[in-house]
Amino acid sequence: MAGNILGKSFVVVSFGESHGKCIGTVIDGCPAGLKISEEDVQRELDLRKPRSLQIHTQRTEEDKVEILSGIFNGYTTGAPICMIVWNRDVRSMDYEVVRYLPRPSHADYFAYIKYGGFNDYRGGGRFSGRITAGFVMAGAVAKKLLREVLNIEVVAYSLEIGGVRAENFTLEDAVKYRYENDVRAPDKSSAEKMMEKIIEARSRGDSVGGIIECVVTGLPIGLGEPVFDSLDSDLAKALFSIPAVKGVEFGAGFKIARMLGSQSNDPFTIRDNKIVVEKNDSGGIVGGISTSAPLVFRVAFKPPASISIPQKTVDIREMKEKELVITGRHDPCIVPRAVPVVEAVTAIVLVDHAIRSGLIPPVLEKRDV
Amino acid sequence: MAGNILGKSFVVVSFGESHGKCIGTVIDGCPAGLKISEEDVQRELDLRKPRSLQIHTQRTEEDKVEILSGIFNGYTTGAPICMIVWNRDVRSMDYEVVRYLPRPSHADYFAYIKYGGFNDYRGGGRFSGRITAGFVMAGAVAKKLLREVLNIEVVAYSLEIGGVRAENFTLEDAVKYRYENDVRAPDKSSAEKMMEKIIEARSRGDSVGGIIECVVTGLPIGLGEPVFDSLDSDLAKALFSIPAVKGVEFGAGFKIARMLGSQSNDPFTIRDNKIVVEKNDSGGIVGGISTSAPLVFRVAFKPPASISIPQKTVDIREMKEKELVITGRHDPCIVPRAVPVVEAVTAIVLVDHAIRSGLIPPVLEKRDV
Amino acid sequence: MAGNILGKSFVVVSFGESHGKCIGTVIDGCPAGLKISEEDVQRELDLRKPRSLQIHTQRTEEDKVEILSGIFNGYTTGAPICMIVWNRDVRSMDYEVVRYLPRPSHADYFAYIKYGGFNDYRGGGRFSGRITAGFVMAGAVAKKLLREVLNIEVVAYSLEIGGVRAENFTLEDAVKYRYENDVRAPDKSSAEKMMEKIIEARSRGDSVGGIIECVVTGLPIGLGEPVFDSLDSDLAKALFSIPAVKGVEFGAGFKIARMLGSQSNDPFTIRDNKIVVEKNDSGGIVGGISTSAPLVFRVAFKPPASISIPQKTVDIREMKEKELVITGRHDPCIVPRAVPVVEAVTAIVLVDHAIRSGLIPPVLEKRDV
Amino acid sequence: MAGNILGKSFVVVSFGESHGKCIGTVIDGCPAGLKISEEDVQRELDLRKPRSLQIHTQRTEEDKVEILSGIFNGYTTGAPICMIVWNRDVRSMDYEVVRYLPRPSHADYFAYIKYGGFNDYRGGGRFSGRITAGFVMAGAVAKKLLREVLNIEVVAYSLEIGGVRAENFTLEDAVKYRYENDVRAPDKSSAEKMMEKIIEARSRGDSVGGIIECVVTGLPIGLGEPVFDSLDSDLAKALFSIPAVKGVEFGAGFKIARMLGSQSNDPFTIRDNKIVVEKNDSGGIVGGISTSAPLVFRVAFKPPASISIPQKTVDIREMKEKELVITGRHDPCIVPRAVPVVEAVTAIVLVDHAIRSGLIPPVLEKRDV
Repeated sequence: MAGNILGKSFVVVSFGESHGKCIGTVIDGCPAGLKISEEDVQRELDLRKPRSLQIHTQRTEEDKVEILSGIFNGYTTGAPICMIVWNRDVRSMDYEVVRYLPRPSHADYFAYIKYGGFNDYRGGGRFSGRITAGFVMAGAVAKKLLREVLNIEVVAYSLEIGGVRAENFTLEDAVKYRYENDVRAPDKSSAEKMMEKIIEARSRGDSVGGIIECVVTGLPIGLGEPVFDSLDSDLAKALFSIPAVKGVEFGAGFKIARMLGSQSNDPFTIRDNKIVVEKNDSGGIVGGISTSAPLVFRVAFKPPASISIPQKTVDIREMKEKELVITGRHDPCIVPRAVPVVEAVTAIVLVDHAIRSGLIPPVLEKRDV
Repeated sequence: MAGNILGKSFVVVSFGESHGKCIGTVIDGCPAGLKISEEDVQRELDLRKPRSLQIHTQRTEEDKVEILSGIFNGYTTGAPICMIVWNRDVRSMDYEVVRYLPRPSHADYFAYIKYGGFNDYRGGGRFSGRITAGFVMAGAVAKKLLREVLNIEVVAYSLEIGGVRAENFTLEDAVKYRYENDVRAPDKSSAEKMMEKIIEARSRGDSVGGIIECVVTGLPIGLGEPVFDSLDSDLAKALFSIPAVKGVEFGAGFKIARMLGSQSNDPFTIRDNKIVVEKNDSGGIVGGISTSAPLVFRVAFKPPASISIPQKTVDIREMKEKELVITGRHDPCIVPRAVPVVEAVTAIVLVDHAIRSGLIPPVLEKRDV
Repeated sequence: MAGNILGKSFVVVSFGESHGKCIGTVIDGCPAGLKISEEDVQRELDLRKPRSLQIHTQRTEEDKVEILSGIFNGYTTGAPICMIVWNRDVRSMDYEVVRYLPRPSHADYFAYIKYGGFNDYRGGGRFSGRITAGFVMAGAVAKKLLREVLNIEVVAYSLEIGGVRAENFTLEDAVKYRYENDVRAPDKSSAEKMMEKIIEARSRGDSVGGIIECVVTGLPIGLGEPVFDSLDSDLAKALFSIPAVKGVEFGAGFKIARMLGSQSNDPFTIRDNKIVVEKNDSGGIVGGISTSAPLVFRVAFKPPASISIPQKTVDIREMKEKELVITGRHDPCIVPRAVPVVEAVTAIVLVDHAIRSGLIPPVLEKRDV
Repeated sequence: MAGNILGKSFVVVSFGESHGKCIGTVIDGCPAGLKISEEDVQRELDLRKPRSLQIHTQRTEEDKVEILSGIFNGYTTGAPICMIVWNRDVRSMDYEVVRYLPRPSHADYFAYIKYGGFNDYRGGGRFSGRITAGFVMAGAVAKKLLREVLNIEVVAYSLEIGGVRAENFTLEDAVKYRYENDVRAPDKSSAEKMMEKIIEARSRGDSVGGIIECVVTGLPIGLGEPVFDSLDSDLAKALFSIPAVKGVEFGAGFKIARMLGSQSNDPFTIRDNKIVVEKNDSGGIVGGISTSAPLVFRVAFKPPASISIPQKTVDIREMKEKELVITGRHDPCIVPRAVPVVEAVTAIVLVDHAIRSGLIPPVLEKRDV
């Protein structure tokens, strides 16, 4: 079946389960000569950690990265980089009860059928959001490559949570502020309102969804390999690999379907002696390749399926309808913790394409003898 | 760069240019023993043809499929299947003028930069919607496999065009009616209103976008290989390969971001002694695998970038802003012609996953000696 | 099953059958800006043609290449390149008799079982040596890339045929002489003796095998991506795709198994202020990467399985042993015609790795506006 | 560059360095429901360990496998399986001296150039034979799958070491005896003579090469996906990934080049009401697919490049010729320890193809609720 490998040139492998020994990743194809340390990776991992007990799971994992291979004397070597975080705070007993009482809109039942009952069901196993820790580790390397080699920055933030949409902010605000607040909003006022929505849902045992927006600056013209490996194709594929994602749109997105061509077209103009677009409803991608305008896309997340409100399910052994109340430790909203994950997978896809386009060489700089 | 190959087990290769000799495809990995004829493929290709001069391009290609390999005595052999349609009605002179006057929101300029000026710019070359004829040819084989081996049906239709959204229809309506009207709407009343919108836009030299919805019935539990080759990931990747697509959403899609978990979760129940979901806001995919509920997704198309209203562009040799009026033959709305294309790529992805899951065997039936 | 695609960056797809409409190939990932014409490809194809009726099949195919896509104004565009040769001189009736009387050491019976009886058995179908015409077409592009971008030359020749081994020759002799004689020997005297062996075998209705040696000059240090995509791994994979190959060895090859380390090691020395090896028992590859010494390998070919001497086989319908006498038109020795095929697949693999190493850029040279 | 991933359906990833933290592997695509334990894997790893200090390296690694993911309650789950062995007995100081004095016929110098000086040179880094521990771990899973699902057995042994060739033995002898003697010979008498050869070479500070033969029984007709993913192609690719391999041949191998077609062809006959071949010069593969006759191939290994006899090399900083005497702990013959490695990669490739052919299903058996 073999679906845990992403990319062609900067190839990311995912392994590990929510309640297994660890969550891990292997990067195959990372150029040699990138200075990187466990601290660099840890910084990204820390952004994914639950920050506030008010709005996050009570499971507190240290999520301390251990680099197992591929780094030597502080630099990447060109060899595969394996990184793991050990699982520590595991209470698997919580899940025994739900084994035969599948949680609605969780993968429990479908995975049970698909894998013939052999899947590790503890904490959702491979279907847990926890596996995105591996994405973040690989993304940390990718982000550093983008920044240091190409001066590309990937900035995601919670555009909308529980119906509260951030509307008055600039990209600069988002860059500065998103990791300063617990919900990863691009501005203070939205952050507070989003926070309230999450707390409110949690208090009722419910959960809320939201939308993450991501903006990438510094891209050159030409990333993306149409027709099938177009940049939007590969980004969308990676983004839908994040648990709970139900929609992806670029630029004007679904709204463009209601525009006229005369509105949606982005005219060319000249600025500073360079050809640029006057506006960016294309979201920085036309024909599947980057236009050098900022890459802009949005990702819709559903509310976490784990809620403590009683739900209708079926006992799959007795084939009887049952009521289910989920206990365990869960996030009432996954959006804030998904922000660094969106950045990570975006960076991974961009590095993959940058290598394919020859923009990132196999060796970043030669060492003197 | 090599981005023209899709899939792992049912692998589709795309080649050909809008104004080159032909548009073609190779399928590698098609099981042996499928009865298929040029007529079967032609039927699908005909659905993609401009049907009404009122709302479509004046370019009239016969688009007659020629199977070059892989079929013997009326059956697939297990060998790669190459199929082409020859380009006949080519007027490349139309495009010389725009070579250095790139059309806004077309790939012209970005492809020029990416390929160092070597790209075939005639009619958009590789970036033309015309290459989707290759998708449809491969999709014809995929659809037949799905139908005959697994009883799976893929049904797409124009949900919305130019702001007109079809709302009063059943899936049965759509199945029956969509290919009976020129705009591929699921019902008669919407069809007429959408038609008007297109004609109106065309009369002003403008263009309109829209949304295609696709429903797949008959899927078993378990298609999709998480975490990276999840079913939604691979569908999204394929859908974003269709020119003009700017958004993809599954089930409740972007709306789910505003729901509570208690609303968005799909409870389990028992019907006819089978475990099923009571509703389907998940759109038939949870955790990246099919749930056996109908697969439901929507695809947003931008208005065609070719409009005859004067637009602002830049002469890239003179580095001067210029006004551009696009002549040539174009579609004022691509949505109707994209309906069979969405069905085709959906079928391709589903067959790829069905083979990976062992649901479609390498040989459909053994022949007697 | 999907096994007709080779490579990662310079990807070659094979399609077509011996007695189908055509033999073809698609190259996905060819850099833009290579000047190439049908004549360039034809020149390579002509080297593969039977040259002498004395020692070759009576089937005379014109093998005229038709480029269907990917070339525009005489240059590669970066788009997939599809090339075909039409099959003309087909006499399929010859093969009906052997359908149920499988030819020993041909794929007939095994393909029959594998593909459930649906395979195109005419002329061996996909198992015919004829499909290597596709390899040669793709190889023509690869050889031109290697020569023009990296000054790399690929030179193969018949080292041994029917037990006659060429021993007194230089690489210069081989370069000059191999395509001047019908058996592709590296020197005149060997050529005559090899020719005799083939004629003698043919006169008895028998066939002979041989060994092709291939030398590649001009390689830099570092092609090959260990551990699995090592240069020898990928070359061996491609070489074993050529029908009738039963062995591949690099440098000293099987003889190295009887050497001592003190004999087989290639000491380093300095020449012209460069570090080089004093001898080359490694055959230009150490640790899976090129050493900049000439790449040297040998490929063993079995005698063609089609002989007109009576053979023992089984009627698979009657399940009875039968005597088989193969008629039809066949080569009594495939080695001479395989020489350009070995060059082709070698060039394909080298270009794939040169692109992966960043030595061949996605665009060869930018065009002026 | 990304070359550390092998296979399409049973995908094996390699990571780790000789003197890094660990050697590891990830298997993506292992079917669910295989009972497997660390003991099963350990048994295979133990076969690769140096068994006799007389003929092996003094480096004594415990090589204790730790399964990090993919196994739950003693069965594979369908999720990626990560396995590692920690490196313990590391003395990296031995290698500092050779950093700028590259060892002849080692990858040292070529890797230095390829990776711009960033490669982990300690103990050969990624180029060490030690990374084959990862192959053996993945191979342990593959061998168990082959045995339990398809009753296929993979048997390799030292056919020749230091010029001593085993000649009087049966396959049964080899099965029984190979792991009973330190050199992995198929019979006692050869074992003793090979042992002497190794001890003799070692006493002079020299090393010897050899040939491993591998026989696979129980294969059905039809494994292998021609033309590029033919069974011999994929086996050869995997075998050349093993350090020190310089040649691979199937069946009669290089000798077939000197046979006539009337000799090399394997006639069909009927035995026990089944169609079989009378002899097996094809080595169980014709046209790139398995014939159901035993798969037979041989692999030539060069003598280890690490010898303590003084050798000529170059100081790459001073650009001066120097004499080098290699100290450190090395094997005077790698062949015995490579026997389980050859079995491992063979099993990996066979499982990959068995899954592709639908012979091994995604779930081995369904579990009851």
